[in-house]
Amino acid sequence: MRKSKQLDSLFNPKSLAMIGASTSTRKWGFLILLNILKAGYKGTVYPVNPKLDSILGFKCYPNVADIPDQVDLAVITIPAAMVSNVIDECGKKDIPNIVVITADFSETGLEGAKLEKEIADKARSYGINLTGPNTMGIFSAESNLHALMPMIMPLHGKVSMFSQSGNVGVQMLDYGLQENVGFEKFVSSGNQAVLSIEDYLTYFANDEQTDVILGYIEGLDKNSDFTSVAAEVTRKKPVLVMKGGRTNVGGSAASSHSGSMAGSTAIFRAVCKQTGIVEACNTQELIDCAKAFACYPLPKGNRVGIITRGGGWGVLAADACEENGLDVPELPRYLIREMDKLLPKYWNRKNPIDLVGTIAHDPLPQCLEMLAEWDGVDAVLALGAGFRAFSYQYSEEVKGPRELTDAMELLKEYLKERSRQPDEILVQVANMVSKTGKPVISVSIGSDYAHKKYSEQYGIVSYPTPERAVRVLRHMVEYSRYLKTSS
Amino acid sequence: MRKSKQLDSLFNPKSLAMIGASTSTRKWGFLILLNILKAGYKGTVYPVNPKLDSILGFKCYPNVADIPDQVDLAVITIPAAMVSNVIDECGKKDIPNIVVITADFSETGLEGAKLEKEIADKARSYGINLTGPNTMGIFSAESNLHALMPMIMPLHGKVSMFSQSGNVGVQMLDYGLQENVGFEKFVSSGNQAVLSIEDYLTYFANDEQTDVILGYIEGLDKNSDFTSVAAEVTRKKPVLVMKGGRTNVGGSAASSHSGSMAGSTAIFRAVCKQTGIVEACNTQELIDCAKAFACYPLPKGNRVGIITRGGGWGVLAADACEENGLDVPELPRYLIREMDKLLPKYWNRKNPIDLVGTIAHDPLPQCLEMLAEWDGVDAVLALGAGFRAFSYQYSEEVKGPRELTDAMELLKEYLKERSRQPDEILVQVANMVSKTGKPVISVSIGSDYAHKKYSEQYGIVSYPTPERAVRVLRHMVEYSRYLKTSS
Repeated sequence: MRKSKQLDSLFNPKSLAMIGASTSTRKWGFLILLNILKAGYKGTVYPVNPKLDSILGFKCYPNVADIPDQVDLAVITIPAAMVSNVIDECGKKDIPNIVVITADFSETGLEGAKLEKEIADKARSYGINLTGPNTMGIFSAESNLHALMPMIMPLHGKVSMFSQSGNVGVQMLDYGLQENVGFEKFVSSGNQAVLSIEDYLTYFANDEQTDVILGYIEGLDKNSDFTSVAAEVTRKKPVLVMKGGRTNVGGSAASSHSGSMAGSTAIFRAVCKQTGIVEACNTQELIDCAKAFACYPLPKGNRVGIITRGGGWGVLAADACEENGLDVPELPRYLIREMDKLLPKYWNRKNPIDLVGTIAHDPLPQCLEMLAEWDGVDAVLALGAGFRAFSYQYSEEVKGPRELTDAMELLKEYLKERSRQPDEILVQVANMVSKTGKPVISVSIGSDYAHKKYSEQYGIVSYPTPERAVRVLRHMVEYSRYLKTSS
Repeated sequence: MRKSKQLDSLFNPKSLAMIGASTSTRKWGFLILLNILKAGYKGTVYPVNPKLDSILGFKCYPNVADIPDQVDLAVITIPAAMVSNVIDECGKKDIPNIVVITADFSETGLEGAKLEKEIADKARSYGINLTGPNTMGIFSAESNLHALMPMIMPLHGKVSMFSQSGNVGVQMLDYGLQENVGFEKFVSSGNQAVLSIEDYLTYFANDEQTDVILGYIEGLDKNSDFTSVAAEVTRKKPVLVMKGGRTNVGGSAASSHSGSMAGSTAIFRAVCKQTGIVEACNTQELIDCAKAFACYPLPKGNRVGIITRGGGWGVLAADACEENGLDVPELPRYLIREMDKLLPKYWNRKNPIDLVGTIAHDPLPQCLEMLAEWDGVDAVLALGAGFRAFSYQYSEEVKGPRELTDAMELLKEYLKERSRQPDEILVQVANMVSKTGKPVISVSIGSDYAHKKYSEQYGIVSYPTPERAVRVLRHMVEYSRYLKTSS
C-alpha cells in the first residue's frame, strides 16, 4: 500500500501561522482567521502581516521567521505571485504543512501552471505537505480547526471528506447541518500541486477518528494509484464517492474547473465495482449514505422487512426494494400468528406489514421488534415509526367559540400523553439495532421536524421518503456483499 | 370526454353534517370535526349523534332528517355495519355528497365487499356522489374545508391531488409544508365504490382554482377510461403522477392495500407517454415537480443555461442535464464579450458559467440576467443564487477576547449590508421569469434556510441540489414537447 504521509500535524497542528492575516472584513485573511478563532481552535495562532502590529488581539509577526516557536501549519492567502517566496520562508522555518488558499495558479492558464510547478517543486524540496493551491481550506473536528473560506460550522461526527471541488465539499458540510451528518475532517484538495486525493484517502483510512470516508472526484491523474489505494481502504472503512464530469458537457466543465481529465465514466464505474467504492448517483444520495454508514451496522444480506403505518408507503417501499435488488420475503407462519394477537383481524399478513391505523392503541413497537428479530430479514424499514399522529403544535392558538378552545385544551392533554410515545419508539429502535446487529431505518417526515433531532439524539437513521431509505440500503447491501465476496 | 360530475358541492359545500360526531378525543368523529372547525370552514356544521345534545358548542342532531336546512355534504365515521341505513337517511334528505371515512369494507374481504356494493348501489340510486369508503377524507382550500383524519393543515395553493392511498396523499400534503407547495383540493379516493380517480381528475381539470393536478395511482379498473380522460386533461393542465405497485412485490402489497390490480408497469408508462402525463420516479420528485409546474412557465425547448457560484455544482448540473436529455449549449461570442467586462480575466467562458468567487463585488445578478435573456436558452439554472456568502447567524454570541467580539461586531455590520443582496436577486429572478417567459430555477441550501421562505414570498422555485432541479426541468421540457407535438 501507498506510504501514508504524516498528515497528522496538517489536520491537528499545535500551532498555526496565518500568512496574509488582515483586519479588513473583505479579505480572506480576515475571514479565515475569524473562522479559526470563532470555532475555538485548540492550538496557538500566529498572524503574519508586515504592516500590522496586532490583529484581533493577537500579536502580529512581519514574517514567519520572526515567530518564536515551532509552527506546524501555515495557511496562506497572499496573492499568487508572492506565494513562492513565502514557501521558502516556511521551508527555512521548518514548517511541515502549508495550505495555499490563494487561487490563480494552474486552473487559470499556462502562467499560473508555471507558478504552481515552482511552488510544488519548492515544497517537495523542503519536504512540505502542501494542500492546494486554489483550495477552500481544511477542517478538523478533533482540533476544532476551521481553516475554511466559507463561514460554516460543520456538525462534528465520524465522516471525513476529500473534495476536488471546494464548492461541492462545502455544500456537503452544509447538507450535513441539514441532515444531521457530522464531519470529522474535511479537505478541499484544490489543484493538488503536492498532496493528492490519494494521500488524503490513505490518511483518512488510518485516522482513528474517521469511520466513513466521503469523496468528490472529478478526475484522476494518468499515473494515479487510486485503484490500488481504494481497494485497500475499503477493507477498513466504507468509501462513498460522487463522480463529477460523467458526461461530455460535465467533463468539459470539469476540465476548466479543476483541470482534471474526467476520463471514462465506464472505467470509473468499473473501478468502484472492483474496489468496493460506493458510488452515489447524486449529492443527496451521498449525504444520505454518509448518515447510515456512520451510524449503523451493515446488513448481512439483502432481505428487508418493512413495517408501515400506512399502506401506500409500504407499496412504494416494496417497489423501490425490488427495483434496487432487495428482497422482501414473505412472513413466516409463526410471525403471522404472533401478530394476529396484536393487529385487527383484517390485517394484510404480508411483508410489508401494513399496521391498520388505530387511535387508541399502537401496535407498532411490538410488531417492529418481532420483525427485526426474525432471522429471515437482514434489515428493517420502519415507515412512519417516528411519526406523531398529529401535527398541530401544542402551543398553537385556536380562535373560536369557548367550546372549541376547550376541545383543543382537551386534545392538547391527550397529545402530550401520546407524544411521549415516539421517543419511546426511538429508544427501542436504537436498542433493536444494537441487539440484532441489523440496520433499522426510520422513514418519517416533517410536520414532525422535531423527530429529526430526536433521531440524532438516539442515533437513529431517518429519511423523509421511503425511496431515499431504500437507495441507502441498496448501497449498504452491495458494500456488505463486496466485503464478503472479495476477501 | 367523460361527463364531468357535479362535484362542486362536494369540495365546496355550504353546509355539512358530521355523522358520528363525538366528544371523545379518541374518535375520528371528534378529530375530524375538530379539524373542520379549527381550519375555519366557511359553511355551516351540523353534528349528528343521537346520544348528545351539543358538541363543541354546536347543537347536535339525532338524525340528518332533523336538520332544519339543506345539507350539501355528509361526512360519515360510524361503524361499517351502520353505514347502509345512514345512506338511506341521507338520500331521503337529498344530500348530494357523502364522504365515508369508515373502513372495513371491500379492502378487508368478501363480507366487506358485499356491504360496499350495497352502499354503492344505494348511493347511485339516490344520485349521491360518494367518496370512499375507507378514505382519509377531503380538503378544499377554497372553502377552508379540512374533512381529514390526520391533523394536518396543508399550505394553500394551486395544486390539487387525488390519491389512491390516504397515507401517500397526506404525506404529500406534509411534504408540501416542508417544500413550500400549496394545495387547493385533495381527495383520498379510498375504495372508490362510486366516485373514482377518473371523476376527480375530470373535476380538477375543470376547476378554475386548480392549476396543477397530482395523482397517486396504484391501479386502474379494467373498464377505466383513464387514458382518454387524461389525454384531454393534460391539454389543459399538467397531470403529475406517481405509480405504486410497479413491481411484483409492490403490486402484491397494493392488491391487499387498495384492492387495485396494479397491472403492467410498461403499459402504464406507455399510457403516460401517450397522454402527456408526467410520471415522477419517486415521491420527492413528485412534490418537486408540483412546485415548479405550479409557479413557472414551461420551457419552449431543452436548452439550459447554467450559472454557478462554484465550479463543482456546475459540473454536476451539466452532468445531470446531459443524462436527462437537456442541452447545455456553448455561449455565443457576444455574451462572452459582455461577461468579460464583469468577470476576472481567467473566467471559464463556458456554459456552465463559473463565477469566480469574490468577496467585494458580486457579478451574479448582471450575468444571470444576460444569460436568461440570451435566446439560445429555454431555461436557466442559477446555482447558489440565493446563497448567502456566510452562514453565521447575526444573533450568534461569540465568546473570546474583546478583540474577537469587536471583530464579530464589525463582521455583523458587513453581513447585514451584504444580506440584502439575496433578496434583491430573488426579486430580479422573479422579474426575469415574467419578462423572458423562461423558468429560472434556483439551487441553494440550507444554512440559509430563510431563503426558502424568501423564495416562496417572491414566487421563485428553488431546490437544495442541482440534480433535483435538473430532474424537474427534464419533466417540464418533456411536457412542453408533448403539448407541441401532440396538438
